Amino acid sequence: MDRAARRSLAAKLFDDVAARSRDGEGITRESYGPTETTALDLLERFAQSEGLTTARDPAQNLVVDLPDKPSGAAIYVGSHLDSVPQGGNFDGLAGVVAGLLCLVDFRREGARPPRPVRVLGLRGEESAWFGKAYMGSSALLGKLTDEDLDLRHRSDACTLAEAMARTGAEVERVRRGERFFDVDGAAAYLELHIEQGPVLVAGKWPTAIVTGIRGNIRHKHVVCRGEPGHSGAVPRGLRRDAVLATAELMHRLDDHWAGWLERGLDLVLTFGIVSTDPRAHAMSRIPGELAFSFEVRSQSRKTLEEFYELFHTECKSVASERKVRFEFDRRLETPPARLDERWVAHLLELSGRLGLPAERVPSGAGHDAAMFAAAGVPSGMIFIRNEHGSHNPHEAMDLDDFVLGVELLRLALSEPL
Amino acid sequence: MDRAARRSLAAKLFDDVAARSRDGEGITRESYGPTETTALDLLERFAQSEGLTTARDPAQNLVVDLPDKPSGAAIYVGSHLDSVPQGGNFDGLAGVVAGLLCLVDFRREGARPPRPVRVLGLRGEESAWFGKAYMGSSALLGKLTDEDLDLRHRSDACTLAEAMARTGAEVERVRRGERFFDVDGAAAYLELHIEQGPVLVAGKWPTAIVTGIRGNIRHKHVVCRGEPGHSGAVPRGLRRDAVLATAELMHRLDDHWAGWLERGLDLVLTFGIVSTDPRAHAMSRIPGELAFSFEVRSQSRKTLEEFYELFHTECKSVASERKVRFEFDRRLETPPARLDERWVAHLLELSGRLGLPAERVPSGAGHDAAMFAAAGVPSGMIFIRNEHGSHNPHEAMDLDDFVLGVELLRLALSEPL
Repeated sequence: MDRAARRSLAAKLFDDVAARSRDGEGITRESYGPTETTALDLLERFAQSEGLTTARDPAQNLVVDLPDKPSGAAIYVGSHLDSVPQGGNFDGLAGVVAGLLCLVDFRREGARPPRPVRVLGLRGEESAWFGKAYMGSSALLGKLTDEDLDLRHRSDACTLAEAMARTGAEVERVRRGERFFDVDGAAAYLELHIEQGPVLVAGKWPTAIVTGIRGNIRHKHVVCRGEPGHSGAVPRGLRRDAVLATAELMHRLDDHWAGWLERGLDLVLTFGIVSTDPRAHAMSRIPGELAFSFEVRSQSRKTLEEFYELFHTECKSVASERKVRFEFDRRLETPPARLDERWVAHLLELSGRLGLPAERVPSGAGHDAAMFAAAGVPSGMIFIRNEHGSHNPHEAMDLDDFVLGVELLRLALSEPL
Repeated sequence: MDRAARRSLAAKLFDDVAARSRDGEGITRESYGPTETTALDLLERFAQSEGLTTARDPAQNLVVDLPDKPSGAAIYVGSHLDSVPQGGNFDGLAGVVAGLLCLVDFRREGARPPRPVRVLGLRGEESAWFGKAYMGSSALLGKLTDEDLDLRHRSDACTLAEAMARTGAEVERVRRGERFFDVDGAAAYLELHIEQGPVLVAGKWPTAIVTGIRGNIRHKHVVCRGEPGHSGAVPRGLRRDAVLATAELMHRLDDHWAGWLERGLDLVLTFGIVSTDPRAHAMSRIPGELAFSFEVRSQSRKTLEEFYELFHTECKSVASERKVRFEFDRRLETPPARLDERWVAHLLELSGRLGLPAERVPSGAGHDAAMFAAAGVPSGMIFIRNEHGSHNPHEAMDLDDFVLGVELLRLALSEPL
């Protein structure tokens, strides 16, 4: 395919998937939910129409191969097909489409890459739905625990195990920790992904090579409990107001965050979900309860643990001063990941050869690549420039940048390490 | 009735109404909703069974008279029958039951009070449902505006006008501002109510006489708008985080509040409702939006206005520092009310005569009495001691205290001003 053909085929695939997952202003493809399945089905039919071989692994991830692949350890190209609620279309999907376009290229040209190339359309990467990230790749690698499988959907409608079972996944094998991925038979895992921060836009780089991935510590559901009461009748000193207590907690942590950044530490802090109890709250009622999520991310495991400890210290302090208490659900965590130095160097070298910037950037966001890297698969990532960040409906990847990224990926598959 | 009979009849009425409005731990009787109607119907049937005359005014408030009432200006005894979501049983209901017990007393004894006594079972006093308080008494007094009638239910399911129409209220007459209450024919409005603060408990007073009622300024729905984004990928300086911005706003106002109290001003501040958008929020998404309610109450109109101005000043300051904006819905307000000095003195005198404490207390909470006082009806209020405040399921009025309050009310009706 020439550049124009690649661009127009990409546009069509992106549009077809978007049309089936439109949700208000944005895109919604739930982890292990029906719109995610629709996206898998659509890409699978496309792959078949191009003469590629398709399958589903026991965790119901999509697996696509060339029909006449060489023997030997394969290079995996993957990314995910789910999205956050009302998110953007390219987050995840771009990497799967990039892999498919490379396979289509090889197939149409009758070219045979030196190593087998296998594309993974992974499910369930976003933590927005069950509070846990990397579900599809974790299942593939035998790393989804009983505790994970029992996590409840954000709507409380079902558990992860139930949602997986409805897609046809073999949950019992997943639960036993069976591995559906041959680590020794994997030469590498490569992932193309939109950048979810503003660095490439600021640098005017259409692509860049990722060096490492921030880890995180999270709580999906922390509850501050005070005492409800009539808003007009209880004086300030006798109140146990869960909202004002939490506001103070958040404000203190925000101040610490600013201080830690000044000390040069890598850190982001987010309370993405905050809510009084909709069944009980009222304008004229002292809020007796406030639920919120907590997330801290860093490239340093030490920074993560230290800030998490500070979070608990401040909870204790606010609890004692304001006569409230904080209750924590299960601590969730993903360790920071380092990508393969040799692949980073190789991708930088190939970028230079294509006239693309040879720039190294860290990833603030998590990616399935972190799971493969942790499992011992040499992993590399290509970032594509993207306006307005992601996890929102306004992400804006230029298809010209995307096509440059696909060309870099294709070169890496034609001339692997 | 002797004290024991009065106590046991009161217990039965409270239990019967509670049984029909139980909601989880608490009691829910929606303003102009079905469970409020159920309470009205139950009390109406009870009144009829005791030989009292009942009617509904065009705003569907319950009106109960003695069958053979004297002529002349009447003394009204009223309170409300709705509750906040999952609130307590006595808030409002106690005052209506107290009035009914006095009528039953007169009727059973064949006593004829010197002035007509009319009991009002008012609807829609709680602002929790439509964001506005005193709906039933406002309608009665011709003070419910078009804007009020178009307010939407907290569930967004209907407007106040629609909810009123469903109960049989004559909404068009209400909308025209017709008055269904003869102010000149009203000698007084008396209301017995549980105290919603801790003052009577602290003073060990079973009853006390109310001197005035705090007014308020409110917004049902303020929205802080920032920008959503990926929680891992956007550095602190580029974020427009609606939760951290609002946490800072609340924390600043809480600090001001403490300072104003030190200056001796009367003030309470409550953000009873706080929520990120449940359709879009996620643990890993920078919150682009946070909605909250705002309420300030004071016995001083000047303090109300000055704190409200400070609220807007701080919103502007936080908005500019954190690159967010605050959007405000309609400002709602209720002016502070002063109760009738002569009635206050009279009730204090009668308290002394019954061996009850002759104590004056302000009311932090709003009451329908404020509407009648504002309309020019001489108004008085009796507070009953109550543990754990109100607007929560744990309010605990002792029936012995209640019966003492009813005896005081009955004496006031037998020997009015």
